[in-house]
Amino acid sequence: MRDVAVIGVGLSAWGELWDRSLRDLFVEAALNAVEDAGVDSVEAIFVGCMTGGLFAQQEHIGALVADYLGVAPIPATRTESACASAGAAFRTALMAVDSGNHDVVLVGGVEKMTDVDGGGATAALAAASDQEYEAFHGVTFPGLYAMMARAHMAKYGTTREQLGLVAVKNHENGSKNPHAQFPMKVTLEQVLGSVMVADPLRILDCSPITDGASAAVVCPLEMAEKIAKKAPVRVTGSGQATDSIALHQRKDLTFLESTAAAAARAYDMAGCGPGDLDVVEVHDCFTISEIMVMEALGLVEKGQGGPAVEAGETALGGRIPVNTSGGLKSKGHPVGATGVAQIHEIVTQLRGEAGDRQVAGARRGLAQNMGGTGASATVHILEVA
Amino acid sequence: MRDVAVIGVGLSAWGELWDRSLRDLFVEAALNAVEDAGVDSVEAIFVGCMTGGLFAQQEHIGALVADYLGVAPIPATRTESACASAGAAFRTALMAVDSGNHDVVLVGGVEKMTDVDGGGATAALAAASDQEYEAFHGVTFPGLYAMMARAHMAKYGTTREQLGLVAVKNHENGSKNPHAQFPMKVTLEQVLGSVMVADPLRILDCSPITDGASAAVVCPLEMAEKIAKKAPVRVTGSGQATDSIALHQRKDLTFLESTAAAAARAYDMAGCGPGDLDVVEVHDCFTISEIMVMEALGLVEKGQGGPAVEAGETALGGRIPVNTSGGLKSKGHPVGATGVAQIHEIVTQLRGEAGDRQVAGARRGLAQNMGGTGASATVHILEVA
Repeated sequence: MRDVAVIGVGLSAWGELWDRSLRDLFVEAALNAVEDAGVDSVEAIFVGCMTGGLFAQQEHIGALVADYLGVAPIPATRTESACASAGAAFRTALMAVDSGNHDVVLVGGVEKMTDVDGGGATAALAAASDQEYEAFHGVTFPGLYAMMARAHMAKYGTTREQLGLVAVKNHENGSKNPHAQFPMKVTLEQVLGSVMVADPLRILDCSPITDGASAAVVCPLEMAEKIAKKAPVRVTGSGQATDSIALHQRKDLTFLESTAAAAARAYDMAGCGPGDLDVVEVHDCFTISEIMVMEALGLVEKGQGGPAVEAGETALGGRIPVNTSGGLKSKGHPVGATGVAQIHEIVTQLRGEAGDRQVAGARRGLAQNMGGTGASATVHILEVA
Repeated sequence: MRDVAVIGVGLSAWGELWDRSLRDLFVEAALNAVEDAGVDSVEAIFVGCMTGGLFAQQEHIGALVADYLGVAPIPATRTESACASAGAAFRTALMAVDSGNHDVVLVGGVEKMTDVDGGGATAALAAASDQEYEAFHGVTFPGLYAMMARAHMAKYGTTREQLGLVAVKNHENGSKNPHAQFPMKVTLEQVLGSVMVADPLRILDCSPITDGASAAVVCPLEMAEKIAKKAPVRVTGSGQATDSIALHQRKDLTFLESTAAAAARAYDMAGCGPGDLDVVEVHDCFTISEIMVMEALGLVEKGQGGPAVEAGETALGGRIPVNTSGGLKSKGHPVGATGVAQIHEIVTQLRGEAGDRQVAGARRGLAQNMGGTGASATVHILEVA
């Protein structure tokens, strides 16, 4: 196995973008990443996309983006693990480099989510749940996470206010991120007074629907120092795991086993633990998920996610800043692109390029990406090389 | 890089299977592959699926199959490259083993295609073409391949009869394959008299719609000899490439550049050429594609595919038997599963287990899998270890 480094990162514009199609979005992110890396070619592409079929009637995403980047005939493969599709792409790209099959690899993700009729996005996203036992019967993702939230509140005493404070923190961070889709700050009162989606989750507990793409360039560490424009960031840990796809089959609704398993592997590989991290991006598709992920990553004890948020431990300047980018909540959540957008934030932090949201002296960061209600998870640890 | 071997292969039932869902199909194939390998656990899964979203409103295919196999929390990732999705999964699995990230990996593909309304399958498959420039305007896959067929006939004099003889040969082979969906023999007269789909392609020029799954178990060659029940088959070459997704952007409608590029890499890696192969499986989604793939693989000169079929060179007992399984045409074509089903046939041949369709003394085989009108292709070379 070879050591692998990230040498470039890039994003497309994110938002409700009527002038950009799926292919446009990925090309924009990819060109930004290639420019950031300072390379003039790549050897292979791995691109995450959750459901190009249901959102855009377009599959064959790998060939599509290779074509529109003008880089055919290089190999290009789409990976899919629901909202962890780009996390899975990143892990696959590491293997492609690790294995010696390729040196300079472009990896990223894309989702064009807004070009569907009302209800279409909710139905498309439901394809990440168990269609036969959940979605078919009308359960939606806000509904599933609402059940997890209620269980967490019942078991640990997590409060409605603590959930709301996740949104307050993430919008505060997002207000410092020029890339955020919803950069406005919100107050706890606004969260608690926002429209109900699935009790107890309100609209300001939910991440938005986003058109967007993300990209990164990875290569062997030893090559990075020669070809990259900026200091490389080393990937020291990678883990991926699964859990039951249907929520009703979990042993415990309040604990994300797949995130814990993926993290265990990544920590082991990197030779570090949750106490050794300077900055963390987690998959806060809903406010409750940030709290549950913190617990599964071992950043706090089980049940202590809510109190930690309330105490400001995860705010900028706190013990362990979480979602300095604004997270999915404020930055936006183009589902198939999110995993590599998290890598983008960690790389930005480790380079000291995060501006007003910079974590001083950050040298080691973690990105956790999740699919469905946690049936898939990837965890990556990155360090200053 | 480590040498990788295939130690087990398996298929589900293939056909129009009202009693089996997408998850059932993959589990059936996977258990057959694991049983064939003789192992009692796997460390990771890569599963090809073209459009679980449009065919079954189900994405998150990796977690789904890991869950229903009862193997969570192991990592599971879906790959998608349209009809080359399983070929891409196989190549990704090789990298996972090559890189030392995993030892025993389950790889395969699945598609549940028949559970849609009339026209639904045609529309779902069209997502493999360029949605914005092809499918949206009503072009279908038979239409696209019909254009390629007409161009090939015009440029090289390929005849309507030569196309038909591909179907005759593949059904002859399929009649010897207990796994074929359409094992009946057909005559040239029947092909030429069958209903027109897209001129010049008739229904017996087209591969069918199939529910089905495929699976294989791969591991390091040095481990294979210790853990496998049967003699391992070594993977000596792997290539993947892309081309423009839309047909109208090709320089030459009659040549499959992505297959040629993928083959060049695979031949180079294996240290052999087209003249060194004993048995070949190609992606005959339409009769014209078998002819074009033969030319792109270098089995024959450009334009000589039709005459070679007419001369019986690719029949069982001919110079280079092609699609001994019956090919997509007779065996069936569950799109996301086909790539690993081709690996299944080559492994079966190299083990000497192909019964009435056995190529005597086969020691080296090639499997070519293709997406769209050739925007993606994978080529793998396997040899007796």
